[in-house]
Amino acid sequence: MPGGRKQRVTLVTLGVADLERARQFYEAWGWVPEEANEGIVFFQGNGLVIALFGLEELAEDQARPEATLGFGAMTLAQNYGTIAEVDERFRAALAAGATMLKRPQEASWGGYSGYIADPDGHVWELAMNPYWTLDEWGSTDLRDPAA
Amino acid sequence: MPGGRKQRVTLVTLGVADLERARQFYEAWGWVPEEANEGIVFFQGNGLVIALFGLEELAEDQARPEATLGFGAMTLAQNYGTIAEVDERFRAALAAGATMLKRPQEASWGGYSGYIADPDGHVWELAMNPYWTLDEWGSTDLRDPAA
Repeated sequence: MPGGRKQRVTLVTLGVADLERARQFYEAWGWVPEEANEGIVFFQGNGLVIALFGLEELAEDQARPEATLGFGAMTLAQNYGTIAEVDERFRAALAAGATMLKRPQEASWGGYSGYIADPDGHVWELAMNPYWTLDEWGSTDLRDPAA
Repeated sequence: MPGGRKQRVTLVTLGVADLERARQFYEAWGWVPEEANEGIVFFQGNGLVIALFGLEELAEDQARPEATLGFGAMTLAQNYGTIAEVDERFRAALAAGATMLKRPQEASWGGYSGYIADPDGHVWELAMNPYWTLDEWGSTDLRDPAA
């Protein structure tokens, strides 16, 4: 299935107005965080990771004004193992008609990341995170001792 | 990991203004559809499924006016194997402070589904789809011959 490995969601990031309130909601719903670093909370899901992250920081990371994100904003991330793969997928997205939001570049968290929007405004991050291991399908597991 | 199996994303549905345009974009980006039924296109991802679905139909399915969905609207779905699990997760979400959008009910597509919004407006569908098989983590694979 040639397209399969491109059709991945490694990370879903929910932009939230109040990180503590959001975390309390998900914990009250029965979720258990895997990691909580400053300003971000990660939950391990089925292959993918679900993160809570401040709306302001999410807007900054996307290089968009916060107001354009709106209520219920979230981004889907596709992670790849190398910078070259991120660049290739980014170029392919633009060639397919995507809007460039942020050209792939070194990120403050130690990886490499860019953002595009599809024709309906859905935002995809294309990223390489040197601290996360991926299986051949692009899934990640934060509980992996190698991660 | 007691919370793990609740922290699932089985389906990401991207609301689109023009299904054919959206499908062309994703195919041009290298994705290969697994199934295309009337009005919806499914791509098999890493455990989860990514769907393209009309914005109007998505709004109707959520029992919300289309205008409130906005640009880039999408929903995340958690699928469970039984109606009882959907009901339990729905009640737990309300108890945790979620907003009810649509009480779980029989759906036109043959399953059972309800919608809630988290405190930041992220929309979760809680569903039982009798035509999809789930592994113990809540992942689904449309290529599974049993599915």
